[in-house]
Amino acid sequence: MKLSPLDEKLPNFLHDYLPIEPKDDKVFVTLTYAQSLDSKISSGPGIRTVISHPETKTMTHYLRYHHQGILIGTSTLLVDDPGLNCKWNPFNETTNLDKYSPRPIVIDMKRQWNFKGSKMEQLYLQKKGKSPIIVVNKLPTHADQEENVDYFVYDNSDVIDWELLFLNLKNKYNIKSIMVEGGGNVINQLLLRHDLVNSLIITIGSVYLGENGVSVSPSSNVQLSDVKWWVGTTDSVLSCRLKNNKDSS
Amino acid sequence: MKLSPLDEKLPNFLHDYLPIEPKDDKVFVTLTYAQSLDSKISSGPGIRTVISHPETKTMTHYLRYHHQGILIGTSTLLVDDPGLNCKWNPFNETTNLDKYSPRPIVIDMKRQWNFKGSKMEQLYLQKKGKSPIIVVNKLPTHADQEENVDYFVYDNSDVIDWELLFLNLKNKYNIKSIMVEGGGNVINQLLLRHDLVNSLIITIGSVYLGENGVSVSPSSNVQLSDVKWWVGTTDSVLSCRLKNNKDSS
Repeated sequence: MKLSPLDEKLPNFLHDYLPIEPKDDKVFVTLTYAQSLDSKISSGPGIRTVISHPETKTMTHYLRYHHQGILIGTSTLLVDDPGLNCKWNPFNETTNLDKYSPRPIVIDMKRQWNFKGSKMEQLYLQKKGKSPIIVVNKLPTHADQEENVDYFVYDNSDVIDWELLFLNLKNKYNIKSIMVEGGGNVINQLLLRHDLVNSLIITIGSVYLGENGVSVSPSSNVQLSDVKWWVGTTDSVLSCRLKNNKDSS
Repeated sequence: MKLSPLDEKLPNFLHDYLPIEPKDDKVFVTLTYAQSLDSKISSGPGIRTVISHPETKTMTHYLRYHHQGILIGTSTLLVDDPGLNCKWNPFNETTNLDKYSPRPIVIDMKRQWNFKGSKMEQLYLQKKGKSPIIVVNKLPTHADQEENVDYFVYDNSDVIDWELLFLNLKNKYNIKSIMVEGGGNVINQLLLRHDLVNSLIITIGSVYLGENGVSVSPSSNVQLSDVKWWVGTTDSVLSCRLKNNKDSS
């Protein structure tokens, strides 16, 4: 499916929130997702739900263009069969999109997902996307390893130490900027990490998905700074940074 | 406290959503509230929480100016000690604000609230606001009745028939437009009533209140139409109408 054109105001609106080479040794992390007015990212567990307008979908690809890695959690991986490639580039090229696409990083600790047969594999084989790094807690036996993927072993049980994971991904694969696209569990964890997240970009679709939807809401109050809104045909987009709550006291 | 000036773009932005004389016998109902990004209207039950910027507070008073009645539910009444008057008028008058203020309509079925000693009484005595209509399920005995209020007996147990209530308020008090300001329970019920709600105006503050906050989320999916966004310093405002879900199929 072809992308709709990028709104001409978006590059300027997003400019200050795009990855820059961090001064320290850190990875630049952008947290981004689309939610309904009632803060749901899907109508229910396991249901892929369209929330945003095609023009904000184009924005997502514009953001992907500017990142070296794109990370998603397990539920999103299993539910959405995501492609995670980048269809936007400044040259309007439509072939060999793999070179403009970020490297997918997928959390699959219990190895419930197969690259083979996935949309991601299809895009990879068509040179429209890169092959994934699969974060697992144990290296699969040789017989169980899939072709064309990298396994990144993160043997730290179920709770992810995000700082360590980002740092290790950078050291091993030289990925200096990561766009985190979900799901709810990953977002709720990272909303509390002002020390790791550099930019937060939220699309708000003008719909209520209802109380049975999958919520985004961190476990505690989160303050934001450098707040800027863009308004589209039906959605609004908020760009901002996470504030250190201690700063605001 | 003095209001900050009304943003010059707001009157035009709100124009199509303000009360008009309905063609039928109905009351014009505007549903309006302020929420955090994670769709909370307060940090927790019983906690009054500032979500919106002073400029959107002024918008609320501009909306109050255009309505004859202003309705709130029991929890908001008990928690917020709300004044519900209107401080905005096109003449910049600061005295006798009662004539610009909507009539408060408060739901207090179990009579847990006292007008006496409330902020609403204080404003009424200073001619800065109107006296309330208290919706009760049984007329208090003569000895229990408070001065300067009207009791509206609505003896329909705990579940409110909103259509009947609005109609009866119109017939008895000639209130042709009502602004509903909350709280969560009332909003969630009325979000499902496209047949009664004419306009929906939501302020979204750029903050997360966290998972223990009081949520707005209707029991099912709600589609919207005539969507328009305004963007302020830190908040965005969505004006729209509720869609009849049957229309969208």
